[in-house]
Amino acid sequence: MSERPDGLALPPTIAWDDAEGGVLRLLDQTLLPARVQTRACRSAEDVWRAIQELCVRGAPAIGVAGAYGLCLGLKPSRTGSRDAFLQAVEQVGAHLDSSRPTAVNLRWAIRRMARVAQESRQDSAAAIWREMLSEAHEMAREDVEACRKIGEHGWRLIPEAGGVLTHCNAGALATVAHGTALSLMYEAHRRGRRFRVYAGETRPLLQGARLTSLELASAGIDVTLLCDGAAASLMRSGKVQLVVTGADRIAANGDTANKIGTYGLAVAAERHGIPFFVAAPRSTFDLSLPNGDGIPLEQRSEDEVRRFCGQPVAPVDMGCWNPAFDVTPADLIRGIVTECGLVQPVSAKNIAEIFDAGACKGAAESYTPGGICGAVRSG
Amino acid sequence: MSERPDGLALPPTIAWDDAEGGVLRLLDQTLLPARVQTRACRSAEDVWRAIQELCVRGAPAIGVAGAYGLCLGLKPSRTGSRDAFLQAVEQVGAHLDSSRPTAVNLRWAIRRMARVAQESRQDSAAAIWREMLSEAHEMAREDVEACRKIGEHGWRLIPEAGGVLTHCNAGALATVAHGTALSLMYEAHRRGRRFRVYAGETRPLLQGARLTSLELASAGIDVTLLCDGAAASLMRSGKVQLVVTGADRIAANGDTANKIGTYGLAVAAERHGIPFFVAAPRSTFDLSLPNGDGIPLEQRSEDEVRRFCGQPVAPVDMGCWNPAFDVTPADLIRGIVTECGLVQPVSAKNIAEIFDAGACKGAAESYTPGGICGAVRSG
Repeated sequence: MSERPDGLALPPTIAWDDAEGGVLRLLDQTLLPARVQTRACRSAEDVWRAIQELCVRGAPAIGVAGAYGLCLGLKPSRTGSRDAFLQAVEQVGAHLDSSRPTAVNLRWAIRRMARVAQESRQDSAAAIWREMLSEAHEMAREDVEACRKIGEHGWRLIPEAGGVLTHCNAGALATVAHGTALSLMYEAHRRGRRFRVYAGETRPLLQGARLTSLELASAGIDVTLLCDGAAASLMRSGKVQLVVTGADRIAANGDTANKIGTYGLAVAAERHGIPFFVAAPRSTFDLSLPNGDGIPLEQRSEDEVRRFCGQPVAPVDMGCWNPAFDVTPADLIRGIVTECGLVQPVSAKNIAEIFDAGACKGAAESYTPGGICGAVRSG
Repeated sequence: MSERPDGLALPPTIAWDDAEGGVLRLLDQTLLPARVQTRACRSAEDVWRAIQELCVRGAPAIGVAGAYGLCLGLKPSRTGSRDAFLQAVEQVGAHLDSSRPTAVNLRWAIRRMARVAQESRQDSAAAIWREMLSEAHEMAREDVEACRKIGEHGWRLIPEAGGVLTHCNAGALATVAHGTALSLMYEAHRRGRRFRVYAGETRPLLQGARLTSLELASAGIDVTLLCDGAAASLMRSGKVQLVVTGADRIAANGDTANKIGTYGLAVAAERHGIPFFVAAPRSTFDLSLPNGDGIPLEQRSEDEVRRFCGQPVAPVDMGCWNPAFDVTPADLIRGIVTECGLVQPVSAKNIAEIFDAGACKGAAESYTPGGICGAVRSG
């Protein structure tokens, strides 16, 4: 088992191996928690399928996996002409981008890789490829660092005692390391806070049950699992002081797409006066969309709902509505924790500020809790 | 397959068989939809287990099953003294009542049976037993009739077109026949309304997926299944014009205990201005409780959450919070459909009226849609 940057006792979410001219090793999240097994991807098609089947999932992780997938897909073109290579960058990139529509990090990563290829277009195909692989490594490193900073900026939101509710998996397994929403919890735990995490199981694919409870428990954090329908009642019971989730795409005004069920949690949190926060790196923002109405929401197979562990749990031909994501409007979100600090209140203006050139530099050190884009203003 | 009073193409939910001095045949709802199989109960213990394991479930159905279970438990006492018999009534009744705590119908049924025993206390044990069996049959008949009337009183709430969201199974399988919330849908469908039902799957035990979708589809009603977490997003999409569920216990002020997840639906419905209704017979009301705070909420096994079809879906020792029910406060409930008409608005006064002596007589014929306790006032 390789060492992870976050120290979790699990194999790396994503690891590049230079053997055989390049292999991407993904911790197969479809098999957890029953089996801890790595899937080797040797082509863009392997990575496309790994993303589509949720072997790798979580917006930041699929961004980085997509970048490495592009490198794998371009391996055969390294010995050809640079024009053919640059054409392949577009083709393979577009194909990888089609694997899942909602998380914008995938598109963001592929565009960034394509930009690197364009910037190196005077070099040989082999040299451009090396530049791209280097960029993918850089993106993986940045993701680790961004997630670590999210934890530093947001850990004070975690109550000294009491409960935190989260949904799906916005953890180390959804990123290269540390996680987004869960990074707050790891950091608060490291600093001695002793809280309880309530993890919604997150039907249909149970990422909360299978992944979040696994990784939090492996870090020694007190975690209790519940069915998604029980969350509102849990809030009513007074056991929850904070709700925090990750995000798959955040529009310019703060409307946030995240795993199906998030919106209902935000509505229930509002009724109970419980703060609802989102944690995500800047790569999850899509400033091209003024609000959440334009976010494409992936509809997945009806069989995810009507079958379970291969067994039918409903009449076999029953029609199902199975969107993988929903959109929580910005007015229900108390704040967004980013690697550049806390965006609070959530507004287009405050979001735009974290994208100002250099705004994020040294942010982690200069964080002011509770401030509006605290890191930016005081940095 | 015996004929059901509601004409559904399924075996009876509950059927008494005089063979062997009395056998209670229950449609085993733990096996549906994969296997249609009846479980024969020959003792109170068999019925206790059938209720506890949810072979028979749904507040009205477990009331009637409890009444028959008491008859089974008293079979051995029929040949003894009447004093010993009456003592057995108390003992067996208390045991059956302990099988599940939330649905008040069980306690209601057992108390009603005990009253019959007391009223016949001058007779022989065998004669008292026959009176009690006769009362159980009467309760089964009344349940069919009450559920039929609930449909007659409430069907106009179902939109002419559009969507109705329901949760868990408040259908023919939760009652002797017709159902409560689903009785509205059957009656509206019979009268030509063509709407779509959205059935929440209802984790952990998937009564929505396994039972509601099965019985609605078997009646030719358009039904679509969804994960519980998707309901709020479905409401936001405009696809839902009505939310209607059953109930397990309704306090004197209208606070309603129902399957876990109901409260979250009511909260989301309020945000979207969608009317949230409850449908239940009078046997589900507990006027001894001024409000919902005193309703005991059953906590069930953690394995219901962390295992599925025998397979672990979470780390095997993960702690789980698994309440079977939640309480929806009366202020979120637009109205309650009973066999005596519609209670609207939901208030202690309007609820008390449906318990006035004779208030319910002829109610079904004189229903005024949208009126306050319409049937009562105009009857």
